[in-house]
Order: sequence, then C-alpha cells, then structure tokens
Amino acid sequence: MKNYGILLEYDGSNYYGWQKQDDYMSIQETLETILGDFFGTPIHLHGSGRTDRGVHAMGQVANFMVESTIPGERLKYALNPKLPDDIAIRASAEMPMDFHARYSARGKTYIYRLYCSKERRPLYGNRYGQCQYPLDVELMQECAKDLLGTHDFNAFKSKRTELENTIRTIYKAEIRQCGECLEFEFSGNGFMYNMVRIMTGTLIDIGRGFYEPGRIRELLELKDRTKAGHTAPACGLYLQEVRYEQKYFKNY
Amino acid sequence: MKNYGILLEYDGSNYYGWQKQDDYMSIQETLETILGDFFGTPIHLHGSGRTDRGVHAMGQVANFMVESTIPGERLKYALNPKLPDDIAIRASAEMPMDFHARYSARGKTYIYRLYCSKERRPLYGNRYGQCQYPLDVELMQECAKDLLGTHDFNAFKSKRTELENTIRTIYKAEIRQCGECLEFEFSGNGFMYNMVRIMTGTLIDIGRGFYEPGRIRELLELKDRTKAGHTAPACGLYLQEVRYEQKYFKNY
Repeated sequence: MKNYGILLEYDGSNYYGWQKQDDYMSIQETLETILGDFFGTPIHLHGSGRTDRGVHAMGQVANFMVESTIPGERLKYALNPKLPDDIAIRASAEMPMDFHARYSARGKTYIYRLYCSKERRPLYGNRYGQCQYPLDVELMQECAKDLLGTHDFNAFKSKRTELENTIRTIYKAEIRQCGECLEFEFSGNGFMYNMVRIMTGTLIDIGRGFYEPGRIRELLELKDRTKAGHTAPACGLYLQEVRYEQKYFKNY
Repeated sequence: MKNYGILLEYDGSNYYGWQKQDDYMSIQETLETILGDFFGTPIHLHGSGRTDRGVHAMGQVANFMVESTIPGERLKYALNPKLPDDIAIRASAEMPMDFHARYSARGKTYIYRLYCSKERRPLYGNRYGQCQYPLDVELMQECAKDLLGTHDFNAFKSKRTELENTIRTIYKAEIRQCGECLEFEFSGNGFMYNMVRIMTGTLIDIGRGFYEPGRIRELLELKDRTKAGHTAPACGLYLQEVRYEQKYFKNY
C-alpha cells in the first residue's frame, strides 16, 4: 500500500467546487473517477480543504491510498494525459503513511484577484472578481495589516459555519497593484469557510469609503459577522499553496 | 447617416478570428448580426485589422455607417447587454464621416503574454503562450531593442503575405517579467500578418540559446523569413490599442 500525494492546479469555473456531491460535477469526483479507472479500484481522495464552486487552485494538495508499484514522482506523467484541460497535476510524490492532506496541513496561502472597472471585461472573465468603485489602495494596504497576528476571526467566517475554535493566525496580508488589477495575498495557519472572501470584501468596502478605516480592528474585537463587509465572489479566489512540515513535492 | 466607432474587448478563444468567413463563426460576423438586428438593417463593420483565430483584443476598433439618432456615447449601453460574454464594447463614439478604422489608423500596440513552465497549466489556459525552456530574459530585453526604429521587416512577415511595402517603424519593444510570466509589448506604425508573433518567437528562440544574440540585426539585414524564429501561438497575443490622429473615445 502506498500513500500518494498530488499537487493540483485547476480552473474551478466549470465545477461545483472541490467536494463530491450528488447531481453536480466536482473536482474531487472528476479525479476519483480517473484515478479509479487508472488503478482499477475505487479511490478515495482527501483534499487539503474544500474550494467553493468557481474557486481556482494553483496548489491544492490531495492524497490517496492504493496498492501500486508506480514511483511517486512518475504518477503525474501517467495521469496528466487523462485529465481534462482545466485540471493538471503539477507534482506527485509518495508520502509517509500518516500524511493526510487536510490534517497534516500547517498553513495555507490564498490569492484574490480583482479588476477595477465599471465595465464588463471579457478578458478577466471568471478568473477575477470585479470592483466598480474607485478604491483607495494605499488605505486598503494599511488596513490589511490589522489582520496580521493571532485573533478571533469569528466576524470573518460564514454564518453557515459552526466552529468551536475561531482563533487563527495570519502571517501575511498584502495587496499589490498589478496594472488595473489588485492582487490580495493572505497566508495563515488556517482559514475558515469564506474567510478570505470576507476579508477581501471588507477591505474593498473600506477602500471605497463604505466603511471607516478602523473597521477591521473593530471587527476583530466585536467578533460579529453581521458587521463585516460583503463576501467577494468566488471567481477571483485562488488556493495558492498548502504548507506542511516539510516540502514533499520536488518534481515541479 | 452616422459613422459610429466602437472600441472592443474580446476573448478570441471561441472564434475563428476577426474576419467574416464561410462556415466558421468570426467576431466580425457575430457583431454584424447583433448590430443588424438592433438597427433593423444590414450593417457592414470595418475593423482596424484582422486578428487571427484565438487572438484576443483589449482595444480593437471598428466603425460602421447607419441611419440612427442614438448619440455615439450611448450606443455601448444599448448594445452591451446583447453581446455574448466574451465580447464587450468598452466605448462608442460618433466619428467624422471620413473616419475608417483601418485606413485612419496611425499605429498599434500589441501585447504577447507567455508563461514559462514545462508543465500544462490550466489557469493560463488559452490566454497565454507557453515556453518550456529556461530563458535568458535580460538577453531578450537587450535584443528586443534591435527591433526599434524604421526597418524592412520582410523577414518578420508570414510567408503567406504578399506585400509591396515591408518597411515599418517600431517605437517600443519591451519585455517585462511578471511573476512566472513574460509580457512583450510592441508599438509601431503598423504590423504585417503574423509579424508580432514572429518577433516574439524569434526573441524566445534567442532567450533559450537556440539563436545567437545578433540574430535580429542579421534578419533585418538579410530580410529572409526562413531565417527568423518560430511563430508564437495565437492564444498569447492581444491587440492592446489602435492609435488615430486624435482620441475619439472618451467614455471609458
């Protein structure tokens, strides 16, 4: 028995998110079907976490157990030709038997891409969020720093999520201007459901002057979701990296 | 009778290029059909130039004549809801009667986007070219300067093109590193068929060490297309801007 890890890139536009579900095509099910056909046995894939419908990934990680003699690094070459155009395996490796893509994860990095224009822009399509208002980017960059450190992020989680522990640590919260687009980067030890999209939405709401600049500090204190900004749309969000205790993937 | 100008953005992935042709759906035909339905009369659209199958545009310009009372600036609001997701009118204006998108053009700017990776990368999809080899970007930046100025670009045109005058002036030939991608920008008074893709391909071939650094100077002297580099694929190319004697589009 081997425990294989795979590092995935995908365009989430045509899937109903990572997680398998009845009636709708997910990335997990697409991969499990292809892996099952390849190995001739049902495969259960563990992802590092769910990505929502329309969310993309440059570095999703998943693992699965199977009897096989294929060396870990070779697996991607065998599987990539079988995958649809919008999913690719960027690296594969044989993992320690106790490696679990979700439970072994130590941290993650997400990117949110936003284009700033009043108009519909076909070339940004479903790979960017959009903001129709002028934004004070310097102010947003300043306020993003308020997210850094260990806080109770209860105000930044989806109302649909029940969680006992809402304490998380954010290591990086940066906003870069790239031409007419903004790129938000968030790294932390973990993110709750919709947390990145709510942090992004709140920063946008500050940048357009809808909220006062101290809003994030206030939210971290009040812990009240109803006071946070809007949830930025899924299509601008990218799971960039999942971090583990060591670097398992070497062939990419 | 009015002469309307429209400034277009499109994702060329799903079209057989700009120009109308039998059996295949073009951007010109898609627009002419929608304009014809809207005005209730057949419309003939003049583009600033053809874009090939798969080529994108941020700033294609086209014009057409029609009897209408709609103010030029309002036209985009009337038409945009009728356009498919991958085409948008970014601006519209009433032009002088002698304005012709192609013959009045004084210059153009093209962008070529390239991602540098051995692997298939779903997120770059059909919006980037790809280079699988390590590139000496500084050398490429240096050699791009050899394109500047007025030269006979016969070596950089498609073999399929018959043209008497192959003299063109290039004002800008720059290469920028954007993360793991390269962005080539070329401005000039005019470009022949495939010229930008051949300039890009030749610079890539120099960057990977396939050609010696003096190749571009040599090509401009020899004027021999068979000595130039490969034609970079259409999917990385964007028509960024068409320049005219004055700035006609104000509402974008």
